[in-house]
Amino acid sequence: MKREIEGIVFDIDGCVARGKKAIPGVPDTLDELRRRGIRFTFLTNDNQYTIATWVERLAAMGIPASANEVLTSAVIAASVTRELYAERKILAFGNTGLIEALQNQELTLLGAEQANQAEVVVVGKDPTFDQNKLNLACQAIWNGAEFIATNYDPKVPTANGFAPATGPMVKAIAYATSKEPLVTGKPSHWSGEMAMKILGVPPERGAVAGDRLPQDIAMGKQAGLFTILVLTGGTSAEEAATAPLELTPDLILPDINHLIDWMN
Amino acid sequence: MKREIEGIVFDIDGCVARGKKAIPGVPDTLDELRRRGIRFTFLTNDNQYTIATWVERLAAMGIPASANEVLTSAVIAASVTRELYAERKILAFGNTGLIEALQNQELTLLGAEQANQAEVVVVGKDPTFDQNKLNLACQAIWNGAEFIATNYDPKVPTANGFAPATGPMVKAIAYATSKEPLVTGKPSHWSGEMAMKILGVPPERGAVAGDRLPQDIAMGKQAGLFTILVLTGGTSAEEAATAPLELTPDLILPDINHLIDWMN
Repeated sequence: MKREIEGIVFDIDGCVARGKKAIPGVPDTLDELRRRGIRFTFLTNDNQYTIATWVERLAAMGIPASANEVLTSAVIAASVTRELYAERKILAFGNTGLIEALQNQELTLLGAEQANQAEVVVVGKDPTFDQNKLNLACQAIWNGAEFIATNYDPKVPTANGFAPATGPMVKAIAYATSKEPLVTGKPSHWSGEMAMKILGVPPERGAVAGDRLPQDIAMGKQAGLFTILVLTGGTSAEEAATAPLELTPDLILPDINHLIDWMN
Repeated sequence: MKREIEGIVFDIDGCVARGKKAIPGVPDTLDELRRRGIRFTFLTNDNQYTIATWVERLAAMGIPASANEVLTSAVIAASVTRELYAERKILAFGNTGLIEALQNQELTLLGAEQANQAEVVVVGKDPTFDQNKLNLACQAIWNGAEFIATNYDPKVPTANGFAPATGPMVKAIAYATSKEPLVTGKPSHWSGEMAMKILGVPPERGAVAGDRLPQDIAMGKQAGLFTILVLTGGTSAEEAATAPLELTPDLILPDINHLIDWMN
């Protein structure tokens, strides 16, 4: 049975783009969704780059998007931090994408020299993360601070193989302190819920579309969204058919462009 | 039934010293062991400091020891690396204690600029560990390199609480690569076996004495040593009595000085 969908969270790589190029037809599909008044957002677990950078990146891929049509795990983390700990003092380790997102939520960010006052530690991918920052994060958590991570991805694919993602340094802190973080990025339910909140769409009228079962579909299921697997990325229809229930999409489409046909 | 003991591995803190002072009577006990021809070594999971530094530290605690009576997890890691991978190219991340130990084993150490040739990655506590070193270690392991860690301790006690130990950065690499390291320090069997090898004593005539069940006693059991718990540190006789079999010491002594009585 078909759901009335008012808002969609799109994964980027493997869903609307492949590498550095839009999947053919996607710009037209997005235009059609806009004309129908369906709100959508592109959601990436990246937390290093700002929304402005992502708007440029998407444009360079051939995907026009406005700033309020893009979400990163940094923006999700900042939104969750604001919702749970608006009045607390925040120690954040991350790149510009995370720091800007936290500042946009008007949260109180501590400098490293004030780290001993921290009530919440927020960690993303920080190119300058080192033993000193590890120690500051651990001391804060041993002193009782909350612990939020943008995501827990162990690695990201690159042109030549892999690179360590945000997860390893988050894991280092978790291992030292025996405290696991609240993870806000995919596949946690927070991403889907917060994306719908930002779109202004109730979860029961929301959907997620993506190419990966353990990230996109898992998040959608946990957030109560309608889940759509597209076959333009890393997952085959066979894999989807044999997946456990919590990873089985509600709908499988050859590509995102078939969304319009399905809606008609 | 009493064992004939020819070699003993002593834990340091809580066994022969407490904080920065020798436990009273210990220097005399050690002298008596020396007179009887019993070989011994002090074993610490520290891997940052050199053997020379440890000899000084022990002397400052009131415990005279020669350089060949001290072992660190760095020396153990270097000995294991030598035994398993003598001809391989080594990428090492650690402090002077680890680098010196590897050099003493005449292993081939790569500079960071040769990291892509690494066949074995050896990791200890490295005060300059950062995202770049994380990436180099991960790339080497993704390329098939072996992975050795001096120890996996999550934290170490300090005067004011805790500090992150060697384990967190080891865990970061393990998490990124999905490859767990071969751990050479306590509580792994490697420490006990390698200590006995260095002492020239067969395990069935060796013993370990320490104050911690999951470190000292666990290592001794796994290495086939006679295990002696002393009550001068973090463990009570009650805890020892209710421990699982693999952590139950063969002998419990009030302190190390009672070793001589027990031997008589």
